[in-house]
Amino acid sequence: MKNITIVGGGLVGSLLAIFLAKKGYNINVYERRPDLRKTNILAGRSINLVISHRGWNAIQAAGLEEEIKKITVPVYARITHDVHGNQTKHPYSIENKAIWSVSRGGLNAKLLDIAEKFPNVSLHFNYKCTDVDLDHAYATFEHTENGKNIDVAADLLFGADGAYSLVRQKMMQKDRFNFSIEYIEHGYKELVIPANIDGTHQLDKNGLHIWPRREFMLMALANTDGSFTCTLFFPYEGEHSFDKIKNENDLIHFFKEVFPDAIDLMPTLVHDFFENKTSSLAIVRCSPWVHKGKVALIGDAAHAIVPFYGEGMNCGFEDCFVFNSLLEKIGDTDMESLLMDYHQLRKPNGDAIAELSLRNFIEMRHLVAEPSFMLRKKIEDKMQEKYPNKWLPLYSQVKFSNIPYHEALSTSKKHDEIMEKILTLESIEEKWNSTEIENKILNML
Amino acid sequence: MKNITIVGGGLVGSLLAIFLAKKGYNINVYERRPDLRKTNILAGRSINLVISHRGWNAIQAAGLEEEIKKITVPVYARITHDVHGNQTKHPYSIENKAIWSVSRGGLNAKLLDIAEKFPNVSLHFNYKCTDVDLDHAYATFEHTENGKNIDVAADLLFGADGAYSLVRQKMMQKDRFNFSIEYIEHGYKELVIPANIDGTHQLDKNGLHIWPRREFMLMALANTDGSFTCTLFFPYEGEHSFDKIKNENDLIHFFKEVFPDAIDLMPTLVHDFFENKTSSLAIVRCSPWVHKGKVALIGDAAHAIVPFYGEGMNCGFEDCFVFNSLLEKIGDTDMESLLMDYHQLRKPNGDAIAELSLRNFIEMRHLVAEPSFMLRKKIEDKMQEKYPNKWLPLYSQVKFSNIPYHEALSTSKKHDEIMEKILTLESIEEKWNSTEIENKILNML
Repeated sequence: MKNITIVGGGLVGSLLAIFLAKKGYNINVYERRPDLRKTNILAGRSINLVISHRGWNAIQAAGLEEEIKKITVPVYARITHDVHGNQTKHPYSIENKAIWSVSRGGLNAKLLDIAEKFPNVSLHFNYKCTDVDLDHAYATFEHTENGKNIDVAADLLFGADGAYSLVRQKMMQKDRFNFSIEYIEHGYKELVIPANIDGTHQLDKNGLHIWPRREFMLMALANTDGSFTCTLFFPYEGEHSFDKIKNENDLIHFFKEVFPDAIDLMPTLVHDFFENKTSSLAIVRCSPWVHKGKVALIGDAAHAIVPFYGEGMNCGFEDCFVFNSLLEKIGDTDMESLLMDYHQLRKPNGDAIAELSLRNFIEMRHLVAEPSFMLRKKIEDKMQEKYPNKWLPLYSQVKFSNIPYHEALSTSKKHDEIMEKILTLESIEEKWNSTEIENKILNML
Repeated sequence: MKNITIVGGGLVGSLLAIFLAKKGYNINVYERRPDLRKTNILAGRSINLVISHRGWNAIQAAGLEEEIKKITVPVYARITHDVHGNQTKHPYSIENKAIWSVSRGGLNAKLLDIAEKFPNVSLHFNYKCTDVDLDHAYATFEHTENGKNIDVAADLLFGADGAYSLVRQKMMQKDRFNFSIEYIEHGYKELVIPANIDGTHQLDKNGLHIWPRREFMLMALANTDGSFTCTLFFPYEGEHSFDKIKNENDLIHFFKEVFPDAIDLMPTLVHDFFENKTSSLAIVRCSPWVHKGKVALIGDAAHAIVPFYGEGMNCGFEDCFVFNSLLEKIGDTDMESLLMDYHQLRKPNGDAIAELSLRNFIEMRHLVAEPSFMLRKKIEDKMQEKYPNKWLPLYSQVKFSNIPYHEALSTSKKHDEIMEKILTLESIEEKWNSTEIENKILNML
């Protein structure tokens, strides 16, 4: 194997290029959009990203930790805002571990810079994939400006071309390729909390701010320039929905009522709300992720998920890490079986993080504001502290470990069952901290 | 509303044309394939069909019962064949009701003949839909022989173009259109039991013959010419699978062992098995089935299912019946809300029959051969006989009633729960017919 085509120069495509360049292959990356380092367009995707343990694990393996860390902001806690503007801090970890906020555009630019330094990596922008001969890893690209077509032969082709992957569309034309795309009832809209005049943040920058309101929520994540990127996750239809906010009055009235402390920090709210588009949120599942020994899907192309666990990119980076590890372990002489191993290792994890992400939406927008949730958290923190080998809360498994997502999911279901029983015990509010409760939990494990 | 385009002249498209022609609309039906009445090609689809109550209900409403009945064969029972060739008859109904076997090609030809007689129906063959402007019910077709394109304007467009619907593909390009295609582990292959020399059937023609073998099965359904169309439902991979039968020896050895009585009736088995293609089996789900007041999916285009309940066509015919009833009830002045009603009435039923069809595969290939299944059937038959208003077995709900599929599904889940408890009672084999058991069941209802 010598030549590798990567369709898509986003986060996953560019990290993958770096991993594979280090193995000595000739890498050609084709990206549909212009080079984001040369255009004034913001990243084109709104939600800020967080790098968690899995992401760092891949970044470290690629030798990039030091460079990437510079453009991140550590986030140590959820900070919830109630309807009166009161804030409550919920640390993510009893060991003061952080997740790391980063701008999608900034991170992508950095990865492209690093990839480009390899003599065996070529980046091609403004090239839209229009066709793939899957059996031969042979792809056709059209230049988005001059309309010219080029044909590219390779030994292996990666579809790192995101949720609406063209490579996957070609795979869908094959018999027995399973596919689903499922939209949730909520869409999202990007809003802004600007920096103070002196460039500082208006809210605690080391927190992920949430205004949980049961059926919807507002979220804010710090940027390094002092601003916050806010995202409103809101139903398309229903009592409180995009559908119901038709004009400035509706908007101001609604924000004053449900997000009174946020609206004071958002001078461009009206403009942003009516100018920025409403984007949909979908989950994409497919199988198999690979075609013979020739084509593999990776990242969102294989497993687009909703953003509520902040794991989309981390899962994609873990795909790269696992692929790279397989390559190191078994070599590249039998790509058909290597790709099959890759699919079998990653597919259950893609499915699991899809489910976990949906569940975390309910946690973020609703449960986190419930007293029983707070109580459960106290009990779980105590269990983790006393029995770190026996009880690792779900959040820590997902964000601060390499435990396969599908194992985290099944452990969490067991934890849920146990905690459901514990939380319905009489006067649990008083005795949650007792040895009796502790033993009950240990017995149920 | 005046002009209606129907994409697809299969079973559902042609019945729909008849319903709508009777309402006075101008109907243009565009079918990708040649006119099956003029070509020598067999219907192109292998599995024989059965018309059940829902199918007849629609056929009656269109005034076609008498004509269609002539080309059907009534089937009153499942007849299972064990590995020694012993046959057991399981009547479908305690009231001697039948389902009706019919050849797909024969029925389609008949419906096209009837549709064509209406002066306001035009049938166009060899026209492949290549594009649809969904907002304007405006479609483009390419002639499959001369390559010429035509554009067709209409007030309403139906996608009756089957499991791999082009109309649905166009809807998929819209934001927030949900879609899934899921293949099962089994494929199928058509085989033949020819007629006796005197034109009679080699097996009881009024039975649906099954050779249930747990993980796979063979099925045979009578044709009017004395032959049986057989279908082998078989895993693609695994211990017993298409993958493992590589040559004549493998095939003969396998059939002699598991279908000893069938192989004696199949002189062309080797030829048929290696010449006929293996086809995949998929479930297609999507939502919404309609676009504004302009486009609606119907039949397999909206809900392709696995064939194990023999309800695919019947569900499609019921779609036509329900659409026609809505038209009669609320008129055609507000098509947007009529289409939304159609979607909301039918979508839960499409989902339910998809699930029921998968469940019936397990019943047909496995459970039907189990003693506990036979016992349950005896108990259910007795309950139905004594309490016809309280207990209607699932099969009768699906095949001999108009009860919405989703209600049948939820009732059946309750029935399953009850019968599971009943069947685990001590010495149930002896006392199944007792008043004690009867009362237990009634109490649980």
